[in-house]
Amino acid sequence: MEGDPISALCSPALVVDVDKVKRNAQRMMERCRQLGVQLRPHMKTHKTLECADIMTGGSRRCIVVSTLAEATFYADHGFDDILYAYSLPFDKVERCAALSERLDLFQVLLDHPDALERLRKRPLKGGRRWHVWLKLDCGNGRAGVLHSEPEALQLAQAIAKADGVELTGVYAHCGNTYNCKGVEQIQAVALETTDFTLQFMEKLKAAGISCRSSIGSTPSCSHPVPDMGKLSEVHPGNYVFYDVQQSLIGSCGLEDVAVRVLTRVVGHCPHRNQLLIDCGWTGISLDGAGKLPSGYAMIEGHPDLKLLSMTQEHGRVEPISGPLDYSKYPIGSLLTLIPYHSCAAAAMHPVYHVHSKGRLMGKWTPTRG
Amino acid sequence: MEGDPISALCSPALVVDVDKVKRNAQRMMERCRQLGVQLRPHMKTHKTLECADIMTGGSRRCIVVSTLAEATFYADHGFDDILYAYSLPFDKVERCAALSERLDLFQVLLDHPDALERLRKRPLKGGRRWHVWLKLDCGNGRAGVLHSEPEALQLAQAIAKADGVELTGVYAHCGNTYNCKGVEQIQAVALETTDFTLQFMEKLKAAGISCRSSIGSTPSCSHPVPDMGKLSEVHPGNYVFYDVQQSLIGSCGLEDVAVRVLTRVVGHCPHRNQLLIDCGWTGISLDGAGKLPSGYAMIEGHPDLKLLSMTQEHGRVEPISGPLDYSKYPIGSLLTLIPYHSCAAAAMHPVYHVHSKGRLMGKWTPTRG
Repeated sequence: MEGDPISALCSPALVVDVDKVKRNAQRMMERCRQLGVQLRPHMKTHKTLECADIMTGGSRRCIVVSTLAEATFYADHGFDDILYAYSLPFDKVERCAALSERLDLFQVLLDHPDALERLRKRPLKGGRRWHVWLKLDCGNGRAGVLHSEPEALQLAQAIAKADGVELTGVYAHCGNTYNCKGVEQIQAVALETTDFTLQFMEKLKAAGISCRSSIGSTPSCSHPVPDMGKLSEVHPGNYVFYDVQQSLIGSCGLEDVAVRVLTRVVGHCPHRNQLLIDCGWTGISLDGAGKLPSGYAMIEGHPDLKLLSMTQEHGRVEPISGPLDYSKYPIGSLLTLIPYHSCAAAAMHPVYHVHSKGRLMGKWTPTRG
Repeated sequence: MEGDPISALCSPALVVDVDKVKRNAQRMMERCRQLGVQLRPHMKTHKTLECADIMTGGSRRCIVVSTLAEATFYADHGFDDILYAYSLPFDKVERCAALSERLDLFQVLLDHPDALERLRKRPLKGGRRWHVWLKLDCGNGRAGVLHSEPEALQLAQAIAKADGVELTGVYAHCGNTYNCKGVEQIQAVALETTDFTLQFMEKLKAAGISCRSSIGSTPSCSHPVPDMGKLSEVHPGNYVFYDVQQSLIGSCGLEDVAVRVLTRVVGHCPHRNQLLIDCGWTGISLDGAGKLPSGYAMIEGHPDLKLLSMTQEHGRVEPISGPLDYSKYPIGSLLTLIPYHSCAAAAMHPVYHVHSKGRLMGKWTPTRG
């Protein structure tokens, strides 16, 4: 199988261009080095060891994950300095404690006083302390204490002074960059999040508390503003694959997108002016509905086609306008989809097929759950 | 873990009520017996051995699958009489041939003359013949030759007379029942599909060809019309789990839905009048967008709440109207989601947790790929 062209794969298949992955990873490392900020890459997009090695430059240190399954998977394979950046889930405190007692540096995150209380009730063994990041909402509108509320500072102070617990850092996710179009808008949000975070760090300093700070998202870290250099860390993740969504936001060019879903024509439907392909939502997910003129994905080399709808194992493709020329798409012929959202497309695949210049190099197996 | 209450599970978790599964399966078997039609249950919703055993009454015979991964998985575990009901994929002909040569009865499906040509070019060993179903489009609008077109009869005749190939049956999927509301509409579509199929069987008979016939979808087979008794087989699948979508169509009551996604409150966002839960699209899929007043799912026992949006590992929940009473939803408290589409929700989970009356019985592991 190794050395075969990617066209030898059965479809649907998720294929990863390892050269683009390395280039995207290298550029992010270089960007962070120039900015003077520590890169802590997020694993959520790919969840594989191989890609984690590329993103950490082989160090297997300083990563961020969003599930305990990922944390355990990476810990089991020699990774350390792992930040589990998910508001401490009360059903997983014991497993977090086990990781904290086993690794050199396992870090958790919280945004509610009840979570701090849970940590205090489960002191770590061997004189260890919980390493805790405070999650701040700087306008993203998902998890986190609102940066401007007095509760944010109160919670930081409570963490800092709690027994058996250490305030390791302040963590904000500028996911609101996903609403941006173009570098200017991205940088405005990046600057705002950076400012809010640094202002909060000033308040902490005035209260006699010092700790690390981190913001991140693929758009902001692809086009960082100089002030981000005043932070301790950044934590982007999607950049290693990128996708159509990131290209529309302005994080990257389409040529930087490292993943594709290979699919084949499995039906001609002249009575509906449509093709059927063997990629349904099990092959690429339903993410991106209504976002693209070309439907749920872009069909590489065929800007005139649209992935109109999907069921479990079928996709319906039709021309954006005019009649379909079926002679161009014989049954069995390959089409290549560029995913709208690579995290969601990758999540549908138990294995990724890795290639260099179109020749298969091997497989990467993500962790799930 | 066995015997524990389901609340002992880490979330998000897909839980299956095995009593409801057995009841749904039993009712479908009984319905088909009364109708005098062979039930060939579809495996695509669950893709597990245990549920397949329940649906086949332990016979491990006469099933339908939609991927070659499923076909191989079931063949490897002693199942036989397997219909791979997917327009013959040209990249998988050799693997289909291997299954045809290995099993007593492996059946494929096609809807294009080029596919027949592929089968003729790969004669089976040991004097075996390809068992081929013709896929007919009776108004569903996905795969299949349109029943009313002369090409349909021509293709059936070509299959019937080809060397090394046998026309086993005519297969139609009345997936257009998914647009119905209520039993009357379902039965109108069921009757139409049955009529079109039986008319086509008459044309075949006039041409001297006899073979089996099959239609199916969960709505039509949950409320069959008497004429369906004139068919050889039916092939529903989702009925074993059902879901909110099926209850809205009228296939079942909400009390028949056998699956849930357990999730926990992981955040309070009073500045947005929202809760965060630990079920994102990796826990329940994005299926059902815009279909329900309660958002992407129904939240059991909380008709006043809406699952507004999801990212990879987070769901945003808000009241349908009025302010949220956070004291009712402390951090860490459990919520139970009834999926809009159980096939899509199940596809996101590497394991299902099975319970009887809320007590854990074990795990089912689906095949993927």
